[in-house]
Amino acid sequence: MDAKISTQKSIGTKHSILDKTLEIIRGKWRLHIIYQIGTEVRRYGELRRMIPQVSEKVLIQELKSLMNLGVIEKKIYNEVPPRVEYALTSKGRQVLPILLKLTTVGEVFLK
Amino acid sequence: MDAKISTQKSIGTKHSILDKTLEIIRGKWRLHIIYQIGTEVRRYGELRRMIPQVSEKVLIQELKSLMNLGVIEKKIYNEVPPRVEYALTSKGRQVLPILLKLTTVGEVFLK
Repeated sequence: MDAKISTQKSIGTKHSILDKTLEIIRGKWRLHIIYQIGTEVRRYGELRRMIPQVSEKVLIQELKSLMNLGVIEKKIYNEVPPRVEYALTSKGRQVLPILLKLTTVGEVFLK
Repeated sequence: MDAKISTQKSIGTKHSILDKTLEIIRGKWRLHIIYQIGTEVRRYGELRRMIPQVSEKVLIQELKSLMNLGVIEKKIYNEVPPRVEYALTSKGRQVLPILLKLTTVGEVFLK
């Protein structure tokens, strides 16, 4: 493989890694949701209360996207009424420290 | 201040820090641009070549937004033809390591 092709391949790989990162954090709510679930397992109603600015429709849609991406998982307990809880997956827990560190960026630019 | 108000204030502050963070990294291109400028000062033409998927219109608009946010700065050299270079500001350089670490998130989820 000559150097030029190798460099192009390397730039391509970097782009797809970055694109995957952006998929996980994109939009106004995904990081908010990850932060709230990150510290402990959350019931749906708790998430509603903790992120009151988001509409019910968008919250449900973003929870679904984060599940499809493998960042969070839903556990349904066979109780009456049924209990539904959200938790980070093991990959989600693995990247949580990096995502938490991101708030430093906001802090620096709010100064 | 009672405990409830204090908690609500703390959640409010966290939200605005996170919102500022999201402003800086939002969209498909800002992180791409920051990464390319991060390693060294870049001329406009170089950025065009390094991120070929972005349209000229959007690249110019995103460079302007990043300048307004104080992440990058433009230097115009009085040469013929004029030389225009983009570099990170000192705040931009300060947060670059955190933003670079973000690619780990994509790596974990591409596995």
